[in-house]
Amino acid sequence: MGLAMIGCGTVGSGVVRILQQSADLLTRRAGQPLQLRHVVVRDVNKDRGVDLSGCQISTDIQPILDDPAVSVALHLVGGIEPALSDITRLLKSGRDVITANKALLYEHGDELFELAGQLGRTLCFEAAVAGGIPIISMVNSSLTGNRISSIEAILNGTSNFILTRMLNEGQSYNEAVAEAQHRGYAEADPAMDVDGTDAVQKLILLTRLAFGTNVEMDRIVRQGIEHIELLDLLVAEELGYRIKLLATTRVKDGSLEVSLQPTLLKAHRGLAMTDGADNYISVSGDAIGRLTLSGAGAGQMATASAVMADIVDYATGRAQQTFQSLLRTRCNDRYSLLPADDLTRRYYLRFRVSDQPHVLADIADILGRHDISISSVRQDETRESGDRSGVARLVVLTHSTTEGNLRAADLELAKLDTLHGTRIRLPLADEPAT
Amino acid sequence: MGLAMIGCGTVGSGVVRILQQSADLLTRRAGQPLQLRHVVVRDVNKDRGVDLSGCQISTDIQPILDDPAVSVALHLVGGIEPALSDITRLLKSGRDVITANKALLYEHGDELFELAGQLGRTLCFEAAVAGGIPIISMVNSSLTGNRISSIEAILNGTSNFILTRMLNEGQSYNEAVAEAQHRGYAEADPAMDVDGTDAVQKLILLTRLAFGTNVEMDRIVRQGIEHIELLDLLVAEELGYRIKLLATTRVKDGSLEVSLQPTLLKAHRGLAMTDGADNYISVSGDAIGRLTLSGAGAGQMATASAVMADIVDYATGRAQQTFQSLLRTRCNDRYSLLPADDLTRRYYLRFRVSDQPHVLADIADILGRHDISISSVRQDETRESGDRSGVARLVVLTHSTTEGNLRAADLELAKLDTLHGTRIRLPLADEPAT
Repeated sequence: MGLAMIGCGTVGSGVVRILQQSADLLTRRAGQPLQLRHVVVRDVNKDRGVDLSGCQISTDIQPILDDPAVSVALHLVGGIEPALSDITRLLKSGRDVITANKALLYEHGDELFELAGQLGRTLCFEAAVAGGIPIISMVNSSLTGNRISSIEAILNGTSNFILTRMLNEGQSYNEAVAEAQHRGYAEADPAMDVDGTDAVQKLILLTRLAFGTNVEMDRIVRQGIEHIELLDLLVAEELGYRIKLLATTRVKDGSLEVSLQPTLLKAHRGLAMTDGADNYISVSGDAIGRLTLSGAGAGQMATASAVMADIVDYATGRAQQTFQSLLRTRCNDRYSLLPADDLTRRYYLRFRVSDQPHVLADIADILGRHDISISSVRQDETRESGDRSGVARLVVLTHSTTEGNLRAADLELAKLDTLHGTRIRLPLADEPAT
Repeated sequence: MGLAMIGCGTVGSGVVRILQQSADLLTRRAGQPLQLRHVVVRDVNKDRGVDLSGCQISTDIQPILDDPAVSVALHLVGGIEPALSDITRLLKSGRDVITANKALLYEHGDELFELAGQLGRTLCFEAAVAGGIPIISMVNSSLTGNRISSIEAILNGTSNFILTRMLNEGQSYNEAVAEAQHRGYAEADPAMDVDGTDAVQKLILLTRLAFGTNVEMDRIVRQGIEHIELLDLLVAEELGYRIKLLATTRVKDGSLEVSLQPTLLKAHRGLAMTDGADNYISVSGDAIGRLTLSGAGAGQMATASAVMADIVDYATGRAQQTFQSLLRTRCNDRYSLLPADDLTRRYYLRFRVSDQPHVLADIADILGRHDISISSVRQDETRESGDRSGVARLVVLTHSTTEGNLRAADLELAKLDTLHGTRIRLPLADEPAT
């Protein structure tokens, strides 16, 4: 089977390494030898640390289109263009495509699926969500006997690494981001990771597959980790919780609740104990109960492992069957989306307040007028070291209330001149039924 | 697609329920309607709580063999016979088979695979190992890009339930067994679960698939939970460990270490925190790193979910491709088995000893002469309540030593008339590299 590869960066060179190291085993598993014939890169002279001597190296996909021996292209570059044009050309030329490009699938997945379907071609994308964790295969094949009722997941390893470093090493947010960059977990501009864009794109892809429903990003409650401070992690820990960037989709009263927010989770839960750059995905279905997967959500070899699974699945013909099954069952907008304002949870609220007698009364009054009932309050006697004199931190846990009530209350809280800096508002996760 | 079902017990009636409740969704996923045409049971008059009105009900498989519309049979009964004869007849008649019968695959898997291969037929068995957890699909398809280096797993939910009840509720072993029987987790005769037979059969099946190596049961270190007492769980907890019936296969220096033993695991590990009837499987591969799955390892609907995954995989044609791939890669005895005596671990030893001055010296002398170095000793001041007067419990943690040294030492320890009752000997799990 002739392969072509577009992009030979971290993941691509990992795939080349596996193809070369495990050639015998892969041939038997795939039922035929796998031959990498083309590699398309921007700079043909750059050393990528792997042996590409058997491949034609070019800067354009045309040589792939001209080679009838290539049946499938591994598309391992990010961004929307030229990815969209390249994949479109490949599909139209009769090539199937294996891609790891989550952003592209998020933005143009529908049209690419449509096009592939019309042309009788196949698209595989196990590596696009959660790196090495085979969540796509799980949803598309292992759980087909289930009606899935919820997904709770940690889908962004960079954010999880940052939160873990802050808590375990006592680092500030900025120090932990710098550490993540130093280790190659975060880009020079970490915005897409820390503001939740990356995780929410993955969640939307999973929601399409698992719930047959297309959700628009701007209708989802989405919040990144940029405003979380070490003190929030420490206070949460004292209360018996860990804060994780939690992606959730679940069916409630026939509607779909979707959110991506830093969330307080009881410290003993598996989700709460997921540390470092790992991902964790818990899927509930009517037959299976709760099934949990965890492992490396990113990284060279783990992502390459997911690409290899697609390659072997394709070589055996399984991937083609799965894609046809997907086309038959994809987005029929089975559920309506619960409006963000109607999400109902308990909340953790954290303020920096002037250390004056009436402050708590003002806050309690505003919350009360928006139907938000207070479960517990703690204002620390000692002020934070180095903090403005006369400013204390105040943490409020609420009883169950709606996101809408909290947003409305927050608009009023913003007007209090006794509150300083960012007002932190994080939901508490429901405890799973045992 | 015409289906037949042999056995309509717990799992079978779960499958019928899913087929009926999710008919629309399954038809789209499978690409064709799924029609259950035959059910074979021992007693045709017994009410099974599900609607079988559309099926021909019989006590023999002959009607299936006579019906050309049946392409695949769901074989959902246990035991070796008539299972082996029935599946053989079905395969020879041109039917493919989906089975949940782990004991049969353990004993006759090789000949059944051989036969199916010769006849061009397909065998599916996702439900045979770990119930709802899709570990077979994981190994056969998602991890094909990997050389697997280790599996660590909790594969017997009954044993895990018993150990959990003992620790959490302070129950004795016998009380916890009775509770497991009361809840339907354990059979009237729980021997196969608690003596490790069930778990070791599953481990051997996984080892065949993941390591391409056939291991004979009597060459494996195998130990059940029958002799574990509450006090062992409590002492382990005080030392920072949990005791779990751990199934392990791993490659070490080119050989395969395989064992099934109650094992001390650091309390913070996911394996250690697996409670109740759940299963937990951690697979390490050269590309993926460590991938972990957990969920219901048994139970009606979780196991039925695994059978449904096989049915849909079969209907789409994926299962046939997977089985062909399996035939190409199965047991080539890639690894040699490390002799049981050469397994090298730290150990937890627990004795009941006469409360006399020279006892510890005798034990230490025997261990020392067998090259077993003691890491820590604790002999409790207070005697167990209700225990024989003058008998104390003694716990020794050893440094790393071999199973062979310990067995030899144990033969000598057995001769000491100052030791009473069962001598408990449990390995400590290696900590995974972080």
